[in-house]
Amino acid sequence: MTKYVYLFKEGNANMRNLLGGKGANLAEMTNLGMPVPQGFTITTEACTRYYEDGKSIGADIQEQIDAALCKIEEINGKKFGDAKTPLLVSVRSGARASMPGMMDTILNLGLNDEVAAGLIAGNPDPKFERFVFDSYRRFIQMFSDVVMEIPKKTFEVIIDEIKEKKGVANDIDLDVNDMKELVARFKAYYKEQKGEDFPTDPKVQLMEAVKAVFRSWDNPRAIYYRRMNDIPSDWGTAVNVQPMVFGNLNDRSGTGVAFTRDPATGEKKLFGEYLINAQGEDVVAGIRTPSKIAQLEQDMPEVYAQFKTIAENLEKHYRDMQDMEYTIENGKLYMLQTRNGKRTAAAAIKIAVDLVNEGMITTDEAVLKVEPKQLDALLHPQFNAAALKKAKEIAVGLAASPGAACGMIYFTAEEAVAAAKTGKKVVLVRQETSPEDIEGMNHSQGILTARGGMTSHAAVVARGMGTCCVAGCNTLRVDEEKKTATFGDLVLHEGDWMSLDGSTGKVYAEAIETEDASVSGDFATLMGWADAARKLQVRTNADNPRDTAQAVKFGAQGIGLCRTEHMFFEGERIAAMREMILSETEEQRRTALAKILPYQKGDFKAMYKALEGRPMTVRYLDPPLHEFLPAKSMTAEIESIAKELGVSVEKINAKIDELHEFNPMMGFRGCRLAVQYPEIAEMQTRAVIEAAIEVKQEDGYDIHPEIMIPLVGAVKELAYVKKVVVDTANKVMEEKGVQLDVKIGTMIEIPRAAITADEIAKEAEFFSFGTYDLTQMTFGFSRDDAGKFLPAYYDRKIYESDPFAKLDQEGVGKLVQMAAKLGRETRPDIKLGICGEHGGDPASVMFCHKVGLNYVSCSPFRVPIARLAAAHAAILEKQGQL
Amino acid sequence: MTKYVYLFKEGNANMRNLLGGKGANLAEMTNLGMPVPQGFTITTEACTRYYEDGKSIGADIQEQIDAALCKIEEINGKKFGDAKTPLLVSVRSGARASMPGMMDTILNLGLNDEVAAGLIAGNPDPKFERFVFDSYRRFIQMFSDVVMEIPKKTFEVIIDEIKEKKGVANDIDLDVNDMKELVARFKAYYKEQKGEDFPTDPKVQLMEAVKAVFRSWDNPRAIYYRRMNDIPSDWGTAVNVQPMVFGNLNDRSGTGVAFTRDPATGEKKLFGEYLINAQGEDVVAGIRTPSKIAQLEQDMPEVYAQFKTIAENLEKHYRDMQDMEYTIENGKLYMLQTRNGKRTAAAAIKIAVDLVNEGMITTDEAVLKVEPKQLDALLHPQFNAAALKKAKEIAVGLAASPGAACGMIYFTAEEAVAAAKTGKKVVLVRQETSPEDIEGMNHSQGILTARGGMTSHAAVVARGMGTCCVAGCNTLRVDEEKKTATFGDLVLHEGDWMSLDGSTGKVYAEAIETEDASVSGDFATLMGWADAARKLQVRTNADNPRDTAQAVKFGAQGIGLCRTEHMFFEGERIAAMREMILSETEEQRRTALAKILPYQKGDFKAMYKALEGRPMTVRYLDPPLHEFLPAKSMTAEIESIAKELGVSVEKINAKIDELHEFNPMMGFRGCRLAVQYPEIAEMQTRAVIEAAIEVKQEDGYDIHPEIMIPLVGAVKELAYVKKVVVDTANKVMEEKGVQLDVKIGTMIEIPRAAITADEIAKEAEFFSFGTYDLTQMTFGFSRDDAGKFLPAYYDRKIYESDPFAKLDQEGVGKLVQMAAKLGRETRPDIKLGICGEHGGDPASVMFCHKVGLNYVSCSPFRVPIARLAAAHAAILEKQGQL
Repeated sequence: MTKYVYLFKEGNANMRNLLGGKGANLAEMTNLGMPVPQGFTITTEACTRYYEDGKSIGADIQEQIDAALCKIEEINGKKFGDAKTPLLVSVRSGARASMPGMMDTILNLGLNDEVAAGLIAGNPDPKFERFVFDSYRRFIQMFSDVVMEIPKKTFEVIIDEIKEKKGVANDIDLDVNDMKELVARFKAYYKEQKGEDFPTDPKVQLMEAVKAVFRSWDNPRAIYYRRMNDIPSDWGTAVNVQPMVFGNLNDRSGTGVAFTRDPATGEKKLFGEYLINAQGEDVVAGIRTPSKIAQLEQDMPEVYAQFKTIAENLEKHYRDMQDMEYTIENGKLYMLQTRNGKRTAAAAIKIAVDLVNEGMITTDEAVLKVEPKQLDALLHPQFNAAALKKAKEIAVGLAASPGAACGMIYFTAEEAVAAAKTGKKVVLVRQETSPEDIEGMNHSQGILTARGGMTSHAAVVARGMGTCCVAGCNTLRVDEEKKTATFGDLVLHEGDWMSLDGSTGKVYAEAIETEDASVSGDFATLMGWADAARKLQVRTNADNPRDTAQAVKFGAQGIGLCRTEHMFFEGERIAAMREMILSETEEQRRTALAKILPYQKGDFKAMYKALEGRPMTVRYLDPPLHEFLPAKSMTAEIESIAKELGVSVEKINAKIDELHEFNPMMGFRGCRLAVQYPEIAEMQTRAVIEAAIEVKQEDGYDIHPEIMIPLVGAVKELAYVKKVVVDTANKVMEEKGVQLDVKIGTMIEIPRAAITADEIAKEAEFFSFGTYDLTQMTFGFSRDDAGKFLPAYYDRKIYESDPFAKLDQEGVGKLVQMAAKLGRETRPDIKLGICGEHGGDPASVMFCHKVGLNYVSCSPFRVPIARLAAAHAAILEKQGQL
Repeated sequence: MTKYVYLFKEGNANMRNLLGGKGANLAEMTNLGMPVPQGFTITTEACTRYYEDGKSIGADIQEQIDAALCKIEEINGKKFGDAKTPLLVSVRSGARASMPGMMDTILNLGLNDEVAAGLIAGNPDPKFERFVFDSYRRFIQMFSDVVMEIPKKTFEVIIDEIKEKKGVANDIDLDVNDMKELVARFKAYYKEQKGEDFPTDPKVQLMEAVKAVFRSWDNPRAIYYRRMNDIPSDWGTAVNVQPMVFGNLNDRSGTGVAFTRDPATGEKKLFGEYLINAQGEDVVAGIRTPSKIAQLEQDMPEVYAQFKTIAENLEKHYRDMQDMEYTIENGKLYMLQTRNGKRTAAAAIKIAVDLVNEGMITTDEAVLKVEPKQLDALLHPQFNAAALKKAKEIAVGLAASPGAACGMIYFTAEEAVAAAKTGKKVVLVRQETSPEDIEGMNHSQGILTARGGMTSHAAVVARGMGTCCVAGCNTLRVDEEKKTATFGDLVLHEGDWMSLDGSTGKVYAEAIETEDASVSGDFATLMGWADAARKLQVRTNADNPRDTAQAVKFGAQGIGLCRTEHMFFEGERIAAMREMILSETEEQRRTALAKILPYQKGDFKAMYKALEGRPMTVRYLDPPLHEFLPAKSMTAEIESIAKELGVSVEKINAKIDELHEFNPMMGFRGCRLAVQYPEIAEMQTRAVIEAAIEVKQEDGYDIHPEIMIPLVGAVKELAYVKKVVVDTANKVMEEKGVQLDVKIGTMIEIPRAAITADEIAKEAEFFSFGTYDLTQMTFGFSRDDAGKFLPAYYDRKIYESDPFAKLDQEGVGKLVQMAAKLGRETRPDIKLGICGEHGGDPASVMFCHKVGLNYVSCSPFRVPIARLAAAHAAILEKQGQL
């Protein structure tokens, strides 16, 4: 028979999956002889059974709960529902992974009129009667809210009525009779709402509470939290039933939380809060302001000393900073919880490095103690905390690219650039951005858009640049002509101040001071340990010298993806690009391309120099050509282009029509451009090779150009373009009298390329998995459109995470694995990498390590994250845990 | 050492792959003792080598050619280049598959001044000298054209000059001196063009000619022909070198072609043409009109008798109708070629059935003798041949849906319907069609569009309906407001007559009489044999009773794909559909859906009745919702909808904006609709189940409804919608007190579904491969946009066929195979089928047989084709040839 219920003394810390984190640690503390009120844990498997059995608790589980209850009655010398020595219990959730505040808790369970009377009879303290009725009314309120879904605040109305009647302001001013009245009125209100009496049988109360905790696993905020934190929905929660101890019994009682080190800075000192004569919920409710834990040292030095010893022992035992809950009942200390404490990124790094220096953990363990995602916070400017506290947000959008920004608002890229050039700090506000805005985005502190999701143009480009971005701010209306941004009644004009928090999505209509994040010496130490551990190389996605230099500073080992099209948008380049698009003959196209060549070559040279000899993979022109022309509705823009290029407006409009596509994502783009117009690939090859040769000659770097053909679906397609590239490269090398080792590879971003990777590897010397497009094609949804229906998928638990943010290992990942295997069969030494934002997602990096890729490539600001995630993967593999 | 050259006597008919069809059959005729001028064949592998070796002929091959030349000199007692008994040869292409007229031929090779003089010296006939110089000038002309790319017509200019000078009209009026002058002037012209003398060495002539034939394998018309006929480009062509025999020697000479049966009707009689005193090219050039072969019987009865015997023997030997070329030189018959003759569909069927009746072949062999694609011609109306001859086309578009149509032109669906209802025959002329045009298309004889490719809406829907369609007619300009169709200077107005040939793409501005195609009794006989042989079931794609009945008549065994959305476009239905789309609450949506329910149910009932108990797979609502609303530019239409539904124009415009998608193909469609709005799936389930129950009660058919959820990418997605369907179905069956066996399955049309088919099969009771969408997603191009760049892919030989017309077996097919295997692992009895146009493509049907699918489903007019193709697959498998 499956064991679904464990006494605390039957478990230990390794049973976290079964007992949940809280249950496993209560068991561990019991085993360590620490003062823990002895209760039992109902396992996570019981929760899974509960859902499988149509939300009911099986008879076998019921029996085990009853038996465990008998045992803890015996251990504690109290009896559930007994009028003389009644046992009261707390019922708390506790999942495998900590989900603080997401699920439900019920305290003081086991109370009814008789039990209350019995408790009072057993304690002569005159204040005790008020305490009992206070606990009783709290229990009714909590039980009704959590179990019966009668909102807690509807009870608060009754409390307010009584306070008003008495003319007092605080709960604490209510006396024992008021509490008795509250209990009576709460019960009456319950009956009114539910049509039946408040349950008096403590066993009924208990089972309802257990079910309510199981149910709370599936409440919307828990689901949301799980999605944000990649916690599978089938884990379930355990339930901990524990005898109550009362911090609100008297002034020799209290409750608090404490950390063994400062969770904000990592400083080694006992850090925490303490509230005399209170229950845990008072701390949470914020009715009273807790004291620092130092107060406990003054109030009850012997208790403080005992707690300090326990805290030190727990940290040594768990070899990590602990976050503890404790209660003191009438001068006696009880431990209610311990867990590895959550901490800021800075604290995480300091603690990890300190623990190594203290000889408590190894460097590998230290690396594992820092969550890769956390590093993000260390790499971007932040608001001054004090200034932020005073600010008031006017809207919230999607936290699309982290960091803080403050500047004056401008509504077009041109105006933003112009303002920035006069030395102003600029925030660019757009309906949505397009590739033409790139220069404006580049000159802005932050970007705000009204439309678009986490994977919109603005979001993707901003993350790539490391620029703060809030996207998809629904309440924002942008009027580009009038130059206004409207949020409800609030109208902002060009030049008004705005601040954006790209980490929370908040928007402020005021200037808030920002601070550059500082990277402490510990950070470098930890990253050094990570680099020593990891096997995956980490490259960056960059297409300009600034980003390249930034990425190198962040430890990038080269460029994995240089998107050449971004080079075509600025200034005179786009004019030449448009001239090429409007060409009618190959000769005209070549003339236009010849104008682009020097720019492209110059960019490559600058990037090769910034890389100081590190490798660079150059992806050839990829986007549909219509992206280089304005929309047809932009008549002024079209007229100005017509004038500039000396062609008719009609011709431009005809070309825009011609380039119109029903599904541009699946249209004339990628290598299809080079198949149609090989002269583009010729020009790009000349630029790459000439740049490499000149930098080799000027700086002595030994450059091995890597040329990547995008969107290949068939080997013959690659072979055709490859021939153009090879012929051109050979010609250029002959002209210059310099030989280079040129490698030609392809993106694997079309399902057919993955499926036929054995064929494609006959031509490709490397594969770079473009998992973004591969995700789109494999799922059959476009990232631009999926935002409309994915919310319903999350609601219905069809998808648990955004496949564009976290690689879908079962589907897309299977294609990646297949392609890696097929590719290696054909060409054992083929170089395999991943580019696109998945390369900076820790879980996806782990996957890349598992599949045996050679490198990941991600935006500059994700390079440290990827380095750390790669180290995690290597260490976990070494430990047999991957 | 590889043998690259075979004497005719060394080969046989089974060596077609190596020797090409012509070479293999010349060898076979040699073995049969028939009079064949003895030459040799250079193999197709030599052609492949030629391309591999950078378009050059290896020394080993050269040696083998020289050796073979020596042998045929010996056999024929003549010597190449000899002045006394010179050997002249023809050099002809001959690929594995017949590609008539696509590649090059050179006759009379071996001539130079000395050889000509020698020939003349050996023959005292005074006319002989003219014959020799005529042959000589023809040789120079042909060699220059084929080998040296000096266009033939530039030589004709010289001939014309001489004729003018002499004042004669025909070549035949030129005498020996004229011929001599021609030879001299041709040689001079050659030198002028090429800067060197015409080659006099016969061996040089021979090798240049061989190379030219190899090159001609890759000329544009050969590439085009191969693509049209699915002939791989790596097969290559063989080259046949054969001693010349001269049909133009004298009046006891001649040349001709003949068939053992009439290729147009299949009638059993010797059928052919004959031209006295002529070489083969004279027949082709059309300078003289050939006589019927009966003329030969009169002219040379003994030669005729010999030929007749040979023809009968060849037919018996090959057990098929033969197409032969022969030449008579001075009363002696020579066979130059035999092959299985090309024939019309009607002839193919008659011949196959006759050959069985004559005891020459088995029924399986008869089935294989009819090409499935040919049947198409038998299933649609055709123009009266005489009337067609007199007609003059005004434009050519894509032959999008076969058949002939004649009617008065209308420019909107509404006007077409109105005109049709007054009894007029209508041709619908549109810029491009949209789903709203469906009723108008349904009422038209034919459809002409200015835009869109073979897979455009018009083309796909028309093929589905079996209605003639010419799409993408580039020279057509449609002005819907002025109601004009303009072709260059020609302006047609509403009500003008137009005829369309959907099999050729030709457009006529006149009425041409059409005839319904007749299906002879032999057709039914042959299809019976096919049905007995095949293993694959054949279903149809239909969504109305008319198409259903048509398909049943064509032998469909059920409906494999009923697209329910087509039911929502007509009349009041679309109003209710729009009401649903514009709903803001679930309740409003349910109200609108309740209006659609009776229509949908009525349609299902009518189709169940038309199916007479055959199964029907119903696919739930699939297209993006914006397809049910007009484009935003159609303001009048929007105003009328606003009035009809009692909502504001702004609201409709806002909804159109909301539904706008960047990539609708990858947007909010398929089961994503049902995930968001489960009430749609509920309504559709109620319609399916109630219809099935009522038809069961009314007609006694035992219906097992098959419900298909489209666009599934993840098993949980299917499970979610399936639960809605099952719950609704159970509810309806309970209400009605009738139990049905309901099966629920899914389309496999998203790559992720194929990759995770093992998971999906846990929920799906059947898979239907939607290879159209699967092709789009697997290749990453949309069928609507690919037309712009695929031509470059064909040009560059990257793709050899349209993957939307012919299933890409290496890529998409691999996914189909993978999904079939994974699905069967989970659910061994899972039913597997394919729907979409690939189901009617013979090669794709073969593939489905090979992969072990249970059925294919295609449009009604393709059902016989699929039945026959399925039989081919089964028979070829039985013969170990699949």
